[in-house]
Amino acid sequence: MSALPPPLDPPRRTLLGPGPSEVAPSVLLAMAKPTLGHLDPRFLEIMDQIGDMLRALFGTANPLTLPMSGTGSAGMETVMVNLLQPGDRALVGVNGVFGARMAEVARRCGAEVVELTGEWGRALAPEDFRAAAAAGRFQVMALVHAETSTGVLQPMDGMRTVADECGALLVADCVTSLGGTPVQLDAWGVDAAYSGSQKCLSCPPGLAPVSFSPRAVETLRGRRVPVQSWYLDLNLIASYWGGERAYHHTAPVNMLYALHEAARLALTEGLEARAARHFRHGRALAAGLEALGLSLRVPEAERLPQLTAVSIPDGLADVPARRFLLDEFGVEIGGGLGPMKGDTWRIGLMGAGCTRANVALCLAGIAAALERG
Amino acid sequence: MSALPPPLDPPRRTLLGPGPSEVAPSVLLAMAKPTLGHLDPRFLEIMDQIGDMLRALFGTANPLTLPMSGTGSAGMETVMVNLLQPGDRALVGVNGVFGARMAEVARRCGAEVVELTGEWGRALAPEDFRAAAAAGRFQVMALVHAETSTGVLQPMDGMRTVADECGALLVADCVTSLGGTPVQLDAWGVDAAYSGSQKCLSCPPGLAPVSFSPRAVETLRGRRVPVQSWYLDLNLIASYWGGERAYHHTAPVNMLYALHEAARLALTEGLEARAARHFRHGRALAAGLEALGLSLRVPEAERLPQLTAVSIPDGLADVPARRFLLDEFGVEIGGGLGPMKGDTWRIGLMGAGCTRANVALCLAGIAAALERG
Repeated sequence: MSALPPPLDPPRRTLLGPGPSEVAPSVLLAMAKPTLGHLDPRFLEIMDQIGDMLRALFGTANPLTLPMSGTGSAGMETVMVNLLQPGDRALVGVNGVFGARMAEVARRCGAEVVELTGEWGRALAPEDFRAAAAAGRFQVMALVHAETSTGVLQPMDGMRTVADECGALLVADCVTSLGGTPVQLDAWGVDAAYSGSQKCLSCPPGLAPVSFSPRAVETLRGRRVPVQSWYLDLNLIASYWGGERAYHHTAPVNMLYALHEAARLALTEGLEARAARHFRHGRALAAGLEALGLSLRVPEAERLPQLTAVSIPDGLADVPARRFLLDEFGVEIGGGLGPMKGDTWRIGLMGAGCTRANVALCLAGIAAALERG
Repeated sequence: MSALPPPLDPPRRTLLGPGPSEVAPSVLLAMAKPTLGHLDPRFLEIMDQIGDMLRALFGTANPLTLPMSGTGSAGMETVMVNLLQPGDRALVGVNGVFGARMAEVARRCGAEVVELTGEWGRALAPEDFRAAAAAGRFQVMALVHAETSTGVLQPMDGMRTVADECGALLVADCVTSLGGTPVQLDAWGVDAAYSGSQKCLSCPPGLAPVSFSPRAVETLRGRRVPVQSWYLDLNLIASYWGGERAYHHTAPVNMLYALHEAARLALTEGLEARAARHFRHGRALAAGLEALGLSLRVPEAERLPQLTAVSIPDGLADVPARRFLLDEFGVEIGGGLGPMKGDTWRIGLMGAGCTRANVALCLAGIAAALERG
């Protein structure tokens, strides 16, 4: 090649989009600690600590709880490829991009997918799932706990009952909820869940915490055909994270350092205090946006505090306005996805980025963008 | 959970196993720079620079050259899931763990796999592939350029001719070669290759550089059925790394910073100088091990300089001896894999860890282990 690029010098942004979120300095520093071998006895201790902390975050006692070596979407795929076999039926709630993605991933596993289509920007009810199931049997019933594309917080009450009625394992996408709003897999009766490191855990992107209930593990053990993905095959990976420490792939050691520190920070704050902080600042942002005359896309009762979807006012162009925010305020917010592209912004107040100062900064930037027109 | 773990304090090791390898301080520091959004205009420039540097490292002009968001094994799976469809035939050279893994991954794609089984610790010849092909047609002919399990460097001469004879795309595993020994995809006529960040690039584990020739891309575009992995589907990912910048998954931003710096260091050194350094120190280590009375597992002409497989002398127990090296010298070396487990050590001199000082340190440690018995 002609000329080598100079050393990296990324500008300092305030990340208030749908993720990656602001990363605490101690998490960045943890990531820069010297790399250990993936079978080093000291590293195995770190893995055990990460497993324990993820169980606390997920609200579960599931032994099979670990971070997959990929981003949140790899977590989604992990759940689907391990639990579904060709010909299985999956009932998937689709009221946003990530529900639609779950359905697509399930189809690529050879499953017959029944989609329960809901309004974008609204939650789904257990009765909706019951009606969509039409008294049929399913291997998996899947929903998105925190829809990153719309900012909807999905209530989990009653979902286990419907899953039981159709004989299904209950699957939840907790990518944007984990570490922000309460996640209680065991209390909810969720059998498999996945998340991402770069949302309310405030760790850089690159890891996907997952958790599987004993019942899900039984399914996994009893498969007729091998998991179609070797890389995501939990029958193999469990031997590395579990007792045998059998080599499967080389764990992303420094990313795991970052997750260790990020989980430690979350649990040191306390999950209740952390959820209260997200709730408080999320509500303040919503009130501020409404005071600026903007309309929110989700009714208050179904709104995610950590991710607020807001309509772009008529006459304001999406991309130039966001570029103005980035250039003049150093603030990143997100555009809309799918049918919301071009008419919606998504503003994240996640983890380390969820502060009173950032609410003020974001509102000041948006007010300036509106004034500028 | 009961008590939170203290902040991480990993010990300082000298990583002389089969990877992860020593990481240069500037790579660790690059990784700790502030996280950018995965669609930030500055981050998109960084991605372009990474693509250019990977092309230089791979010796290719392939536009579709990028790091996958997973470890080396995800790179392997990326190649197989994108190029193979159910019922396709794959001819795979198996003379070590990673050849066997390629065959297994290909089978999980629904391919009919013909394995060319070779002796572990020896290279394969084009005639071997020709004989195994038995005048049949194949979609893919795959081999391991640098077998991390045995320390064999596979010559690439003549392989393209055999692949042409059986109508196959030529696939090479360059996990342990990239950045250490010369890789020349275009000159060799390789259609798809993958690597890992944590070997001779001396970056932490977590990324898998891949490269696909225009012919491989044509295959990809013309698939009858969708790629079974949504996460690794290059038809989708190319839209993010290419011109459209369409969101697919959240790129592992800080890991990509590390790869940017690691690639920059490799190209600043120069690939010829870097290969010469690996050759020189690898030969010195081999000579030193033989001087200690140990037997190498691979004949000199087929030996990888950056990874040396050596027989554990009779009477010396594998695990306690490696633990002694770790505890007393801070040196990590690797055990054997598969049939070589328990009777072979694998010593890596990769990237930043490939120094005269580390040759001396490693030999001193092994001499002490032998003396201790």
